[in-house]
Amino acid sequence: MASYSSSSAYLEALERRSALPAGFSASTATFSFKPLEKPEPRAMNLGLILLERPTERVAGVFTSNRFCGAPVEICRRRMSGGRVRGILINNRIANVGISGGVEDANLVLRRLAELAWAHEEELLPASTGIVGWSLPVEAMVDALPELVSHLQADSILPVARAMMTTDSYPKVHREAVGEGSLVGVAKGAGMIEPNMATMLAFLLTDLAVDRSELEAALRESVEASFNRISVDSDQSTSDMALVLSSGRYPAPGQKELRGALTRVCRRLAEDVVRNGEGVGHVMRVTVRHPDPLVARGTGKAIVNSPLVKTAVAGNDPNVGRIVAAVGDHFASIDRPLDLGNLTVRMGTTELYRNGAFVLDAHRELRMSRYLRQCGFDPAVKGYPQNDRCVEIVVDLGAGEPVEVLGADLTSEYVRENADYRS
Amino acid sequence: MASYSSSSAYLEALERRSALPAGFSASTATFSFKPLEKPEPRAMNLGLILLERPTERVAGVFTSNRFCGAPVEICRRRMSGGRVRGILINNRIANVGISGGVEDANLVLRRLAELAWAHEEELLPASTGIVGWSLPVEAMVDALPELVSHLQADSILPVARAMMTTDSYPKVHREAVGEGSLVGVAKGAGMIEPNMATMLAFLLTDLAVDRSELEAALRESVEASFNRISVDSDQSTSDMALVLSSGRYPAPGQKELRGALTRVCRRLAEDVVRNGEGVGHVMRVTVRHPDPLVARGTGKAIVNSPLVKTAVAGNDPNVGRIVAAVGDHFASIDRPLDLGNLTVRMGTTELYRNGAFVLDAHRELRMSRYLRQCGFDPAVKGYPQNDRCVEIVVDLGAGEPVEVLGADLTSEYVRENADYRS
Repeated sequence: MASYSSSSAYLEALERRSALPAGFSASTATFSFKPLEKPEPRAMNLGLILLERPTERVAGVFTSNRFCGAPVEICRRRMSGGRVRGILINNRIANVGISGGVEDANLVLRRLAELAWAHEEELLPASTGIVGWSLPVEAMVDALPELVSHLQADSILPVARAMMTTDSYPKVHREAVGEGSLVGVAKGAGMIEPNMATMLAFLLTDLAVDRSELEAALRESVEASFNRISVDSDQSTSDMALVLSSGRYPAPGQKELRGALTRVCRRLAEDVVRNGEGVGHVMRVTVRHPDPLVARGTGKAIVNSPLVKTAVAGNDPNVGRIVAAVGDHFASIDRPLDLGNLTVRMGTTELYRNGAFVLDAHRELRMSRYLRQCGFDPAVKGYPQNDRCVEIVVDLGAGEPVEVLGADLTSEYVRENADYRS
Repeated sequence: MASYSSSSAYLEALERRSALPAGFSASTATFSFKPLEKPEPRAMNLGLILLERPTERVAGVFTSNRFCGAPVEICRRRMSGGRVRGILINNRIANVGISGGVEDANLVLRRLAELAWAHEEELLPASTGIVGWSLPVEAMVDALPELVSHLQADSILPVARAMMTTDSYPKVHREAVGEGSLVGVAKGAGMIEPNMATMLAFLLTDLAVDRSELEAALRESVEASFNRISVDSDQSTSDMALVLSSGRYPAPGQKELRGALTRVCRRLAEDVVRNGEGVGHVMRVTVRHPDPLVARGTGKAIVNSPLVKTAVAGNDPNVGRIVAAVGDHFASIDRPLDLGNLTVRMGTTELYRNGAFVLDAHRELRMSRYLRQCGFDPAVKGYPQNDRCVEIVVDLGAGEPVEVLGADLTSEYVRENADYRS
């Protein structure tokens, strides 16, 4: 387990894993604009990921929210069979629910295509931020020449930083595979209960993996990573995870690729939770049940229960709330629950067995101390203070263990979200 | 709309509606006990509702949580066909998940039966409070003689007060019907997303309504009241709503009875939300959709979205989150959502129509002011400061409007629940 005592210690670790795969370049730009709805100007970041040559080796998964953003619509259309040259990312405004949102995004991409000698149809938009505001199209277009002129082939880290909204540190993970590599970046700190993908995640590789295998591998990896986390049970309008390959090096075996992709996605997903808005504890709930969907649902029910979340925030081992959340979930899916066959542990402390709690003053103290050790101060920004998780194990009989990651619920979360737009 | 400027103004209103129906008496007692798990002693309240004679005119609905309390188990069994003489209520400990929890409750009821000249099988237990702790059986038994000796036939108000845990004011509503009356009390401030009933609600009447009609009327009234509220989306292990009749006066017509019962249940349900832990705004979401289950689900999705809840807490009309919650819900139930046919209003301000937001600086300001007017200070305890609701209307086409009540999410809620047991 790692812990970081300063932002610079974490930054060193990040820089080591931020090298771009062959065939990619990246760039960022920052400018200010004035939203119609607010009197003061705001800053917006652009991030650009560009391939030397257009590629057909691409795959994407998107939010299933029926109210989805213009960028999601455009990406879905352009990726269905077409070639991709790059991705233009903006933070601050999600471009969702806007009359003319698709046209706004296309206008910016058309101008970028001219500057970068690309085809408009090969460029993808990705936006994150406030829902219901329009993109500042003019200001974005004005920033494009600088963006294109600063392209470099060294590091994805500036883009990981430019994508941030309420995130307090950038998220990058990397695996070397054969002669090449796989690098992923992600952002997301609120509105996080992905179903198909997290807010924004981009995975870049120089391994010549076929499109069909990329699609299958991405689906499998997202299912085992981003689809098993929840910060606040709100599924975003803008979730997307894209993988792009420059095809420079020979493809590895299927197992090797999927292993690497899943590991990178899982580490990014865990980063997203750890950096969730106001998060002071990460919870990892491991559930065993013959039906893996029931196992995953039970894990999500626990990490999404406000009462479990607030108890963990307060280092209070109020474990009755964990079992209550399990019982509530089984009622909601209309399945029987054999309490006599249920075992629950927190850390190494067994707390429920044979149909009853096994609690005493000593165990309560031990769990309280354990919760304190796993926690960190949500007010400290800029780097993760440790990579510990509150481990909760729910055993409902046979079956492969399914892991779900979640977060506590602190006053810090409420503060951040009560005045997100101010 | 009423607003109360002090606890005593509210108390006067409460006292006027607390008269017990004929044939009932009530009593309370308070004592201290030492929980095994904690070093300091705590106070527990007992509340007793007793009928002069056992009655077969009873009905109840209970939590559907698969992990339910010993009191729910006992009530389900004793009410299935049997007669009821009274209810013994305790706060502080819910008696859930305890080895021997049923035996503990029965032991206390057996001693009460001796003191009150009743049959043990005709007495019902009701408990609310911490899950996973055992009842202090000895201390409860010691308090029973005082409890029985203080029975009075005037007012239910002391019982409404004794039931409280984190509630900050008692909840009583009353309707005069024909020659008789119907009086209801409720408690509940956290772990509130009832499905079949709220935490604890007791409805007493002297109208000679048949058991079968009481059952049907209670189901209908609970469906239109307690099943349409949510404070924090956590369904309790202990929810129950019971109706008891002393049968002293002629039964009214079916429509009259159901109308009165539904009105009392709705007012109690609204009180429960208004007095929810840390609540600073009550939201009433009215949804029209051809399928009433979809309408109710959509309303619940909005009032349960942490992002909607925190925005309302901050008086921030971040209305994108409302439509995002609708889109997320339609994805989760796998139904198409016709955004072009969706209209959303907050108060009198239309904010979404024909597939896009209709927002400008003026509307934003107006909604912000509206949110401020509907709010109250969650730190002020003892009485509700007003009875206003943030009205959100979601129109998805034809269909009867379905109302769902919910609450905002404040730092106060987190504080109360992070150290609930300390």
